[in-house]
Amino acid sequence: MSEHQTARPRGGKSELAGAFGPQVLQWADRLAEWSEAPHALTCTYLTPAHRRVATELAHWMTAAGMTTETDAVGNVVARLRATDPNAKTVILASHYDTVINAGKYDGRLGVLVALVVAEHLRKSCHTLPFHLEIIAFSEEEGVRFSAPYIGSSAIAGRFDQKLLERRDANGLRLDDVMRDAGLDPGAIPALARSRDRLRAYLEVHIEQGPVLLKHDIPVGVVTSIAGDVRYLVTLTGAAGHAGTGPMTMRHDAAAAAAEIILYVERRCAGAPTLVGTVGKLNVPDGAINVIPGRCDLSVDIRSGDDATRDAAIADILAEIGQISLRRQVTVDIKETMRMPAVPCSPAIVDGLATAVERAGLPVVRLASGAGHDAVMFDRLTDIGMLFVRCGNDGISHSPLETVTADDVDVAARVLLDVLIHLDADTR
Amino acid sequence: MSEHQTARPRGGKSELAGAFGPQVLQWADRLAEWSEAPHALTCTYLTPAHRRVATELAHWMTAAGMTTETDAVGNVVARLRATDPNAKTVILASHYDTVINAGKYDGRLGVLVALVVAEHLRKSCHTLPFHLEIIAFSEEEGVRFSAPYIGSSAIAGRFDQKLLERRDANGLRLDDVMRDAGLDPGAIPALARSRDRLRAYLEVHIEQGPVLLKHDIPVGVVTSIAGDVRYLVTLTGAAGHAGTGPMTMRHDAAAAAAEIILYVERRCAGAPTLVGTVGKLNVPDGAINVIPGRCDLSVDIRSGDDATRDAAIADILAEIGQISLRRQVTVDIKETMRMPAVPCSPAIVDGLATAVERAGLPVVRLASGAGHDAVMFDRLTDIGMLFVRCGNDGISHSPLETVTADDVDVAARVLLDVLIHLDADTR
Repeated sequence: MSEHQTARPRGGKSELAGAFGPQVLQWADRLAEWSEAPHALTCTYLTPAHRRVATELAHWMTAAGMTTETDAVGNVVARLRATDPNAKTVILASHYDTVINAGKYDGRLGVLVALVVAEHLRKSCHTLPFHLEIIAFSEEEGVRFSAPYIGSSAIAGRFDQKLLERRDANGLRLDDVMRDAGLDPGAIPALARSRDRLRAYLEVHIEQGPVLLKHDIPVGVVTSIAGDVRYLVTLTGAAGHAGTGPMTMRHDAAAAAAEIILYVERRCAGAPTLVGTVGKLNVPDGAINVIPGRCDLSVDIRSGDDATRDAAIADILAEIGQISLRRQVTVDIKETMRMPAVPCSPAIVDGLATAVERAGLPVVRLASGAGHDAVMFDRLTDIGMLFVRCGNDGISHSPLETVTADDVDVAARVLLDVLIHLDADTR
Repeated sequence: MSEHQTARPRGGKSELAGAFGPQVLQWADRLAEWSEAPHALTCTYLTPAHRRVATELAHWMTAAGMTTETDAVGNVVARLRATDPNAKTVILASHYDTVINAGKYDGRLGVLVALVVAEHLRKSCHTLPFHLEIIAFSEEEGVRFSAPYIGSSAIAGRFDQKLLERRDANGLRLDDVMRDAGLDPGAIPALARSRDRLRAYLEVHIEQGPVLLKHDIPVGVVTSIAGDVRYLVTLTGAAGHAGTGPMTMRHDAAAAAAEIILYVERRCAGAPTLVGTVGKLNVPDGAINVIPGRCDLSVDIRSGDDATRDAAIADILAEIGQISLRRQVTVDIKETMRMPAVPCSPAIVDGLATAVERAGLPVVRLASGAGHDAVMFDRLTDIGMLFVRCGNDGISHSPLETVTADDVDVAARVLLDVLIHLDADTR
């Protein structure tokens, strides 16, 4: 237990307190019943479980009084129209697909919080000066076709047509899978929203990390979504007999990898939003009695701002060079991803922070280390994200992922408050 | 190139110089033609290639004037009898099986050097005060049935009968494979040599390491065969999202492994015959964007004497404990092997050293980091081993393994000299 009291709203108790959280958790439990795995939650793109979840979401959206459709990539889209047909649109969204053996909240929480808020707006006949679109993106995790953001990229006009030819692990092509599910891949380009019709993109998401838990705060305001640079590194030394190669005459690829791992760890501990991970590590065909002649590893470096990240990368690449030179191990480095950090809109960040304050809570600003659908809307419209505290030490991508009804309730009220205070931006 | 001149015999040139080396290399080339792999040398227990090599060896032994037989485990045994039928026996031996994608000399060199020396003794009508047995052991590497020393353990009376039920990768039982090859597993126990009938066991072997190459010496006298203690280590930390877990809040199993690897390397560099190797290293199901929750590794520690090795092991296990405690990573350690160091007989070591000196060469004494058939004769008779310089930085278990005819020639002359000077030991 924390020494501190859990931060709770300090202001006058909202009449809405407790109205949203239990409903959202109940919905999340219901969606988690549909899985392609017998004893775990796995719901990947266009499997029967995934289609069933889409149907359920559409049903709830319709029941909430919104016009609802499933679009050409399987996004479930519900609309709450403003009085002015020429008003801009605010998108409230996240994804409903999951990773393998997932938790119940990653992605879905954002959809369901948006839904509960939209339902409240409609029921209370509160009109906004912009259209509201609740979008449950069909695919964000990239599990089935090794391609993330299928749903949000289509809405953002950034869908890569070449993906249609990609095959899943069973050899099925993406376009065939779409057609079999009753979708029309040819209609994807028409899903792109026009920049000048968008007012903002807002996403609520479980933090998937321990920062809010450590601060003992239900929600946090995301300032940016970390850029991510990834490398695959192959070290080639000299294999040899474990008994006959004196320690001083070895060129051990695994020992070189060990030095790299510890340097990445040390270097990335030196800046607040910087993180570095060696997630893959393997001596191929390693044998207990053979000095490793080769070692493969991955390096993933992220930071809320690109300058911090790139400075770390420069140091890490230089150190890898030094290590390989000193150990006479050759190194092959492939950059496999370079995503710039995506800053959230300062105006939206301030709007969220003010709403958090109005809820009587201290404001924690943090960078998102994980990528989210929001990045697809970079430079297309104003982006904002609200994180919800993740229990169990911040574990996500796991059945242990958890949120509380109270925290979700706060998130929904903050989102509602932000929407009520957001102007039409009729520039 | 070395700055030093290659060490060559300083004494008067032996009339035998050059008599043995080329013959041995020619034989080794011939044996390497039989392989179970199309473009590499692989000759594992009781495959057709292996049987062909046995036939070839038996043919050469017979041609050299010795009575020859293939015994119940496939060893090819040739005898040169002393005049006294009650004389003891000196065994000259090594193995003729190979690893996968092997070199031509590991094992076979010792058989062929013994053969060329025995042939010389017979041709020159030189009688020894002991019987001589040249044994080409059928199996030492342990490739096919994951059991090493099948041939030598039978001769030493240490064959494990339970092995007969073991299956190869194709599901074939060892005893069935033996019978199919015309061998009689039931006759294995009778192969055991009696302790009081043995005078000594001598084995010539390629060094399989770079020490003699570094000293620029053709042969070296083995003082002991290193003991080998092996562990499989499983580290369990906490998996997590590579983007959302701050560096200071992680329990990264791979980072813990990295510390262990570097400590093993550092600790084992501190004593002459001590070596330590992490040969297996793997993050199971590692993903580029996931903090490793688990890492598996192996630790292999060897030394020419058990006290040096055990002191290192104590330090390494203590350090693993410290690392796991500090990082809050749990550790599971299984000891999978503990072979004590096997000392060579001081009298034989001195005999070999004197013979090397008589050949006009400086004496290099070294421990064998690799196990050899000789260990099966521990406490059964006096053991001696002579190493031959290994080219190409000491690479073995590889097609790059190489020896020179000159070095092999020196080894054969030293072996011959030792035999001529060895007493009958009629205690």
